[in-house]
Amino acid sequence: MKLPRGTFDVLPGTVERWQYIEQQLRDISKRYNYKEIRTPIFEETELFKRGVGETTDIVQKEMFMLEKRGKDQLTLRPEGTAAVVRSFVTNKLFGSPNQPTKLFYIGPMFRYERPQAGRFRQLHQYGVEALGSEQPAIDAEVISLAMSIYRSFGLKHLKLVINTLGDNESRAAHRAALVDHFKPVVHELCQDCQNRLETNPLRVLDCKVDRDHPSMATAPSILDYLNPASKAYFDEVLLHLDALGIEYVVDPTLVRGIDYYNHTAFEIMSEAEGFGAITTLCGGGRYNGLVEQIGGPATPGIGFGIGIERLLMALENENVLPAVDDQIDVFIVAQGSDEVEKTATRLLQLMRLEGLVADRDYLGRKFKGQFKAADRLKARYTVILGDEEVERGAAALKNMATGEQTDVPLSAVADTIVAKLKEEAQ
Amino acid sequence: MKLPRGTFDVLPGTVERWQYIEQQLRDISKRYNYKEIRTPIFEETELFKRGVGETTDIVQKEMFMLEKRGKDQLTLRPEGTAAVVRSFVTNKLFGSPNQPTKLFYIGPMFRYERPQAGRFRQLHQYGVEALGSEQPAIDAEVISLAMSIYRSFGLKHLKLVINTLGDNESRAAHRAALVDHFKPVVHELCQDCQNRLETNPLRVLDCKVDRDHPSMATAPSILDYLNPASKAYFDEVLLHLDALGIEYVVDPTLVRGIDYYNHTAFEIMSEAEGFGAITTLCGGGRYNGLVEQIGGPATPGIGFGIGIERLLMALENENVLPAVDDQIDVFIVAQGSDEVEKTATRLLQLMRLEGLVADRDYLGRKFKGQFKAADRLKARYTVILGDEEVERGAAALKNMATGEQTDVPLSAVADTIVAKLKEEAQ
Repeated sequence: MKLPRGTFDVLPGTVERWQYIEQQLRDISKRYNYKEIRTPIFEETELFKRGVGETTDIVQKEMFMLEKRGKDQLTLRPEGTAAVVRSFVTNKLFGSPNQPTKLFYIGPMFRYERPQAGRFRQLHQYGVEALGSEQPAIDAEVISLAMSIYRSFGLKHLKLVINTLGDNESRAAHRAALVDHFKPVVHELCQDCQNRLETNPLRVLDCKVDRDHPSMATAPSILDYLNPASKAYFDEVLLHLDALGIEYVVDPTLVRGIDYYNHTAFEIMSEAEGFGAITTLCGGGRYNGLVEQIGGPATPGIGFGIGIERLLMALENENVLPAVDDQIDVFIVAQGSDEVEKTATRLLQLMRLEGLVADRDYLGRKFKGQFKAADRLKARYTVILGDEEVERGAAALKNMATGEQTDVPLSAVADTIVAKLKEEAQ
Repeated sequence: MKLPRGTFDVLPGTVERWQYIEQQLRDISKRYNYKEIRTPIFEETELFKRGVGETTDIVQKEMFMLEKRGKDQLTLRPEGTAAVVRSFVTNKLFGSPNQPTKLFYIGPMFRYERPQAGRFRQLHQYGVEALGSEQPAIDAEVISLAMSIYRSFGLKHLKLVINTLGDNESRAAHRAALVDHFKPVVHELCQDCQNRLETNPLRVLDCKVDRDHPSMATAPSILDYLNPASKAYFDEVLLHLDALGIEYVVDPTLVRGIDYYNHTAFEIMSEAEGFGAITTLCGGGRYNGLVEQIGGPATPGIGFGIGIERLLMALENENVLPAVDDQIDVFIVAQGSDEVEKTATRLLQLMRLEGLVADRDYLGRKFKGQFKAADRLKARYTVILGDEEVERGAAALKNMATGEQTDVPLSAVADTIVAKLKEEAQ
C-alpha cells in the first residue's frame, strides 16, 4: 500500500515542527483576539461555486468531489474562507453583540493539482476572517497580524505588497477601461483571456500565458479609476500601516478576479535568498460581498490565508526553526523476577502521574540492551531495578549526562527525579 | 447554504473544550512516550479493505469515497489504525532502532451513517498504536494509558472490560466450535448471521439482531479454547493490570470479528448515570497480523481508539469540564483625531507584542459604546485615549473589576498592565 499522490505523512521528528507552528499561530491569534473556528472537512459543492467563484481554476479544475451518496453533492474544502463565512451565516454569528466577529482556522485543504515541488493535494492553511467591520483600521489589523505571525517565527526577509480594488463603482469603471484597452488586441491573447475579457476582465491581468504581451504593461491601473471614497479608504489603510511602522509596496497589478473582492488586497512574500520561484507566503483581502453571496445579511469582511507548508519552507530556508527537545526524562532499566516486572510497571505509572516523560523496555532486552535503548531515547535519568533492588526497596538512579549514580528509596524515585529536573532547569 | 448532514461546526465558546481535550491528550501521550503521527485525510480505498476488513460494516456500507480522478480510488479514512500502519510500512519505521514504535493520532474520521444523536459523518478520534512488541507489559501500558487519559479528565465512573481472542491456533479451535454450535439453528438467525457463520463466525456473537436468541447464551467461550501460550499471555496482562491497581471485568463475549485481531481485546465504558444507551468510550486490542496484511514485515501491534465526541459527552455528563477563561487583558477605548487613531493602533500593537490579549473598537462607536464592548469582551483593563491624553502623552488605565483608574505614561502602558496582571495572578 502506498501514500496517495500529492500527500505526505508527518512523522515523529518532523511533527514537532507542525506542533510548534500551530501553537505559535494559536498564541498570536489569541493576542489579537481572534478565536478558532472549526468547520467540516467537506461542504456542499455549491458553497465553493458561490464562495470561491464559478470561473476560478479552483472550482473549474481542482475540486475533490465525494461520490454522491443520498442527495448531497459534497466537496473537500479547497480553501478556508467560504466555509467560515458559511458557518458565520448558518450559526447567525452576525447576531452576536460582539462585533466584528474575529475568527481563525487551521486545517487541511484539498486541491486536485499535478503534484510538484511545494504543491500538494492535501495542503494545510491557517487563515483569519474579520467579519462585520468596514473600517480601514481593521484592514491594518489583519495585515499586521499576518506580518506579526511571520516575524514571531523569526523571518526577516519579508515584503508586503498592497493594492486596492476600490468599491463596486470604481471596479466597474476600471473594468470598462480594461475591456476598451484589450478589445483591439484580444485576438492576440490566449483563449482563456479571450473568455476572461467577457466574463472577468480583471483576471486577464493575472494571466501567466500573456503576461509579456505589450498590452499588459500599458493596461489601465485601478488607481486611476478610484472614486474619492475608495481612494480615501485606501489612504487610511496606508496611514495605519505607517503608524505601525509596517513597510509596504503599492502594486496596482495585484488583483483578485472575483466579483465580491473589493478595496484592500495584499500579499506577503519572502525575499530570502534561495527560497525559489514561488515567493508568496500569504494572500488576503477585503470581500464585502461574500457574506451576502453565501446567503447572509450584507456584512463587510476581510481576511487572509497562510500556507503552512510554504511557511515551513521559509522557516527552514531562513534557518529559524527551534531545536526539538526529543529527550525523555527517565527510562527504567529492569530485569529479574515477576516482582521486578510488577515493580517496574508500578513505578513507571507513578512517574507518569507525576508528569514525567517515562518509558521502559518492551522487547525483553537484557540490562545492557536496555541501557542502549535508554541512550537512544536520550533519557536524562535511568532507574536501575533488579531483584536485589526490589528486595531492599531502593533503586539506583543514574544521571545519564554526568554518570552520577545515587541510591533512592523506591517510594521517593519519582519525586527525586522531578526535583532534580526542576533544579537543572533553573 | 447549509451544513452538510451529520457534521457540525465548532464555534468559539465551544472550541476551547476541544483545544483543552487535545492539549490534555497530547500531554498524557507524551508522558507515556507516544509520539504524534499525521497521515492524510484520505487513503487508497484498498487500504481500508485490507486494514479494516472486507466483511465489516465500515467497508461495506460506511465509506465516503472520492470521485475517481486519475487512476487512484480514494476514500476518506473511516478510522485511524489502518493509515498509521500504512505509514509505519511506507516510511519503514520498523527499521528504526527505537522499538516498539509508539504513536498516537488525533483527527477527523468519516463514516456514512444515518445521522442520529451522538453519531456523526465527520467524527473525531484520538488513538494510539504500539508496534513491534509482543510483551504483555505493553498491552497493560496501552490499557493504562487509555485509563489514565479518562482519569486525567476527572471521570470517575469507568468500567474496563477485557478479553482475549487467543492466538491463531486458539482462534481456529474456537471458530470450529462456534460453527458446530450455531449450525443446527442457523436458519433461525438473521440473514447477516447466516452469511457470517460462513465468513466470520465470531461476528455472530456481535449481532444486534440475534443477541436474544437462546443459542447466544450457550455459545462456546474463547476462554475454553485457549492454548497454554495464549492463556499465559492473557494471565500476564491481567497480572500487570493488577500491579497497576486497574480494576477490570473479564468478558468472554467481547470479540473483534477481524482476522488479524488476536490476544487482548478491551473496552472502556462510562457507568455514570444519565450517559445514555451507548456507553462505550474506547475500544482497543492486539492485531499481530495487521502490519503483514498491509504489506509490511510481520510485526505485532496493539492500540485503541477514543471517540472525542463521546469523551466530550462524558465530561459534560460528569460535569468535569474546566471553566473557559474568556476574558481579554485589555481593551483600548479611543475617540478623537487621526492622531488618537494612530496612537491607538500603535499602542495595541505594542501590547500584543508584549503578549497581552488586546483589542479595540472597529465599529466607530463612541466612548460609551466602546466601554460596553469592553465589558462584553470581559476586558480586565481598559486604556482610555482621547485627544487630551495623546497630547500630554499619558492615558487613563482602568481596572474593570475594581473601577480603580490610574494615569500612566503612554510608553509605560503595556508594561504596567503586564506587571499588574502578573501581580494579580499570584
